Amino acid sequence: MALETLNAPRDHAATTLGDTLAATTRRRHLLDVDDWTPDELRAVLSGAARMRAALARNERLDTLRGRVLVNLFYENSTRTRVSFELAGKRLGADVTNITASGSSVEKGESLRDTVRTLQALGAEIVVVRHSRAGAADLIAREIAGAVVNAGDGWHAHPTQALLDAFTLERHLGSLAGRRILILGDILHSRVARSNVWALTALGAQVVLCGPPTLLPPAAAELYTSRPVPETGEPRRVAVEPRVERALAGADAVMALRLQRERQQAGLLPSAREYTARYGLTLERVRLARPGALVLHPGPMNEGVEIDPAVAHSAASLIEEQVTNGVAVRMAVLELLAGRMMES
Amino acid sequence: MALETLNAPRDHAATTLGDTLAATTRRRHLLDVDDWTPDELRAVLSGAARMRAALARNERLDTLRGRVLVNLFYENSTRTRVSFELAGKRLGADVTNITASGSSVEKGESLRDTVRTLQALGAEIVVVRHSRAGAADLIAREIAGAVVNAGDGWHAHPTQALLDAFTLERHLGSLAGRRILILGDILHSRVARSNVWALTALGAQVVLCGPPTLLPPAAAELYTSRPVPETGEPRRVAVEPRVERALAGADAVMALRLQRERQQAGLLPSAREYTARYGLTLERVRLARPGALVLHPGPMNEGVEIDPAVAHSAASLIEEQVTNGVAVRMAVLELLAGRMMES
Amino acid sequence: MALETLNAPRDHAATTLGDTLAATTRRRHLLDVDDWTPDELRAVLSGAARMRAALARNERLDTLRGRVLVNLFYENSTRTRVSFELAGKRLGADVTNITASGSSVEKGESLRDTVRTLQALGAEIVVVRHSRAGAADLIAREIAGAVVNAGDGWHAHPTQALLDAFTLERHLGSLAGRRILILGDILHSRVARSNVWALTALGAQVVLCGPPTLLPPAAAELYTSRPVPETGEPRRVAVEPRVERALAGADAVMALRLQRERQQAGLLPSAREYTARYGLTLERVRLARPGALVLHPGPMNEGVEIDPAVAHSAASLIEEQVTNGVAVRMAVLELLAGRMMES
Repeated sequence: MALETLNAPRDHAATTLGDTLAATTRRRHLLDVDDWTPDELRAVLSGAARMRAALARNERLDTLRGRVLVNLFYENSTRTRVSFELAGKRLGADVTNITASGSSVEKGESLRDTVRTLQALGAEIVVVRHSRAGAADLIAREIAGAVVNAGDGWHAHPTQALLDAFTLERHLGSLAGRRILILGDILHSRVARSNVWALTALGAQVVLCGPPTLLPPAAAELYTSRPVPETGEPRRVAVEPRVERALAGADAVMALRLQRERQQAGLLPSAREYTARYGLTLERVRLARPGALVLHPGPMNEGVEIDPAVAHSAASLIEEQVTNGVAVRMAVLELLAGRMMES
Repeated sequence: MALETLNAPRDHAATTLGDTLAATTRRRHLLDVDDWTPDELRAVLSGAARMRAALARNERLDTLRGRVLVNLFYENSTRTRVSFELAGKRLGADVTNITASGSSVEKGESLRDTVRTLQALGAEIVVVRHSRAGAADLIAREIAGAVVNAGDGWHAHPTQALLDAFTLERHLGSLAGRRILILGDILHSRVARSNVWALTALGAQVVLCGPPTLLPPAAAELYTSRPVPETGEPRRVAVEPRVERALAGADAVMALRLQRERQQAGLLPSAREYTARYGLTLERVRLARPGALVLHPGPMNEGVEIDPAVAHSAASLIEEQVTNGVAVRMAVLELLAGRMMES
Repeated sequence: MALETLNAPRDHAATTLGDTLAATTRRRHLLDVDDWTPDELRAVLSGAARMRAALARNERLDTLRGRVLVNLFYENSTRTRVSFELAGKRLGADVTNITASGSSVEKGESLRDTVRTLQALGAEIVVVRHSRAGAADLIAREIAGAVVNAGDGWHAHPTQALLDAFTLERHLGSLAGRRILILGDILHSRVARSNVWALTALGAQVVLCGPPTLLPPAAAELYTSRPVPETGEPRRVAVEPRVERALAGADAVMALRLQRERQQAGLLPSAREYTARYGLTLERVRLARPGALVLHPGPMNEGVEIDPAVAHSAASLIEEQVTNGVAVRMAVLELLAGRMMES
C-alpha cells in the first residue's frame, strides 16, 4: 500500500475468507479472534514459533522495513506497548508511540480524526489500546491500513489470547480435549472473552469460574451459540461458580487480574474475601490435574488473585507468556504485512 | 560537522546566499520563509516531489545515517512531532523526542542551556516547537547545528507553508497569478504568516479575510513592504474583510483553526457567530472559482471554522496536506544535511 | 544470552575478576565503580576514546544489533536518558524508553515485577535511574541480563564518574598525583561518591569541600578504609571545609549542583549565602593551579553554585563532559555486551 492508496477513497469491503492459505493472508485487521478459523489461528501460532526461534538467535528481520507502525495507546500499558514496539522494531518497522492520558479520553470524532491523520502520515499499521469497546473496529472502518486491537474496553484482547494459546500449546501440545479454567472477574475481562474464542476454536474446553456478581450466567450460551468457523464444531464452554469443581480435571488455570475499581462499584465485598474464596493458592492448584499449568495476563496483584508461591512456582508460565507475546505479535504483524504487500 | 566542531567556539556568521544552487545549500536553518528566494523554495518543493515518490515505494534513505535529530516540543502537537519523527527516520537519522509539558514553560536561560546540552550530546538537527515567538531564532544563535522551526508562538511555521505550497502546486501547477484565500484568525496565525511569505514569493496573490478584530488592517503593508528576495518582485497581498468578496475568484481557500482561547479573550462574540459569518460552507466554496481547492492546517474544529461537508468533499486536500508534510520535511532535512556535510 | 536463558532459572553467581583482560569482560553489571580495578577503569576509558573517534566520523556500530536496551527512568533526567538512548542506538540496539512520574514512586515489589517483565520481553540491558539507593542492585539480583546504574538516590552514578575521569584524562593526561576538588553538597551527592572511587583508583587525590552540614566529617575514612582493588594502593581522600585551602593546588574543580530541596530541609541558610561562601567564582578559580579545569555534572544553577563567567570560561569542560558522556556510555555498553555474547 503506497501513499497513492492512502489518499485514495477508502475501500470498506468486508474481509472474506477463501481457502486455508489465502485465508491467512486475506484478513486485513486483527480486531478479535471470535470469527477466526482454526487454520488461521494455527497460522499465527506456527508463525510465532518461527519468530521465537529468530528472537533466540537475536535476528532482526526486514519484513516491515520502510513501513510505519503506530502504537496508539489511550490506556497505559507499558507491558503491551513495549511488546508491540519491540515486535515492530524486530521486523524492521519505523515505530512511533502515541500515548494519551487516561484522563482526557477522546471522543469518537476525535479518535476518527486522529486515525485519519496517522494514515495520512504514512501509518500502515495502527496498534490501538482504548478504554472503550469498539474503538479498534471504529478505526478499522476509517483506514486502508491494518489495525491491531491491543485491548478495547471489556470487549477483546486478541493478541493476549493468541499468546496464551501459543504458550499452552508449547507445554500441552494440541489443545484438543484439554480443560482450561479461567478464574476471576469474567464479566469485565477482555482477556477472558478473547481466550474463550481462541481456545475453543483450537478444541479446548473452557471453564469459567468467579464470584456470581462477576460471572454472567448466560456466558456459556453466548459462546456456544456461535460454532467454530469453517469446521462448524460446537464450542465447549462451561460456567462453574464453585471453584473446587471448576478446578477438577483442569490442565491449566488462568487467573485474571482483579481490578480494584470493581470493588468500589460494589461488585465485590472486599479483596480479602475474594482472595479467601477465589485466590489461586497452592492448595487450589492441587485440585487440578497433576502438573497443571498456571497463567496470568499480568500485571499481577500478588496475594490477591494469585498467591506468590503459585506465581513463582515451577508450574507458572507467567514470564514465558510475556516472552511469547513478542513472538506472537511479530507473527501477527507479519501476517497482516503479507496482506498489505499483496494489495 | 563532527564532535570537534561541536565543542569548538561557535560560529555566529550570518547565512549569506550566493548563486542559485549554492543558495539552496548555504542556509543552515529553517526559521521562517520570509527571506527565502523563489529558487530556494522551488529547491525544497522539487526535493519534496522526489521524497514523495520514495515514500510511495516504501524506500528508506541514508542521507542522515549516523546523525542525530532531536524533536524538542514545548507545545503538544502529535501531528507535527510524528511528521518530523517519521521524516527523520526515513532518512536514517537517530531520532529522539523531548517533550515539555505546556504548564512548565521554560525560561529563555533554560531553553538556551537545554539546547547547548543537546548539541553537546551530538544533536546536529534540532526541530523546535515553542509557544514563544523567537524561540527558534534564539536556539539558532546558540548552536552550530541546524535548527528547524516547527512553529513558534504567533510568529512562523515554515514547514507548514512549504507543505501547503507543495500541495497547491501539485494540483494547480505554477502558483503564478493564482489567488489563494486565507480565512480566519489572521492576527494570531503563524500558519497564515509563513504562508503569505511562501505563496507570494512563488507568484501567488494572497487574500486575507477574517473578523475585523482578528484581521490587522496594516497586514498587507507589512508584507508588500518587503519585495521577494533576489527577484525584487512586489508581493501581492490583499486584505478583504467581506467574505463573499474575498472568495470571488479564489483558486484555493485555506481555513484556519479557530483557537477557542481567543473567544475567552473577548476577541470573538461566539463560535456560533464566527461560524455563521466566516465558517467555510459548501455555499461559500461555490463563490470561489469552479473547482477551487480547500486546505486546513489541522486539527480542525469541524462545524466551527469548516463544515464537515467541505472538509470531506472532493475539493478538500486536507489529508493530502498531512501526507505531503512528511515529504516536505524530508526535503528540508536533506537540504540542511547537505549544508552540514559541506562544513 | 538467548530467550531460553531468559526463561531459565536465574544465575546468581557473584562476578569474580581474574586476570586483567578477562576482568574487563567478566563483569555483568555497572552498579558502581567502588570495586573496579584500575585496569577495568582504563579499559572503559580507552573504549571511550575509540567511541569518541567513531562519533566524530558519524559512524554507526553493530555491537548491539538485534539486542534490546531499556531505559527505565523513575526520575526525570532528559540529559542522561538521551545520552544512553543515543549511545544504544549508535551501537545498533533497539532502545525503548520507560519513564515513571516521580510522584508515583514505585514500591520494591513493583520494581521487581517491572524488571522481570522487561527481561521476559527480551531486554538484555536495563539502564535504571531511581530515587532510591540500591534500586540498581535490586534489579541486578533479579535478571540474567546487564544492569547499568544511571543514578540511584544518594548512592552512585558510575557513568558520570567514568565520563568525568575520561574528560579529565583527555586534558591532564594520567591522573596519578593530580589534585581534584569536589565542591558542594558532598553528603547527598551520588556524583561525588562515584567520582571519589574512580578518581582515587586512577591515582588522583580527591579533596572534598562544602558547608559543614553537607560535608560528613568521616567521609575520608569511608573511602580510605577500602584500598584500590588489585593494586592495594591506599585511596587519597581529604576533607577540607575551608574553600581557599581546598582550592590551593587543585588541578581541577568539580562544582556540584545545589539541590534546592536541601534548603527547605534546613541544611542550608540560603542559596545566597551558599553562593557567597562556596560559589565557584573567577576569583576562587584563581586560587587553584594556573590553568585549573572546571567541571559540573549539570544541570547547572548558574549564579548559585557556579558563576556564569566560570561556567563559560575557557577552563570549563562542562559541555565536553556531556559529549564525552555518550562515548563513555557506548564503551560501557560494549563492555557489558562482550560479556553477554560470551555467555
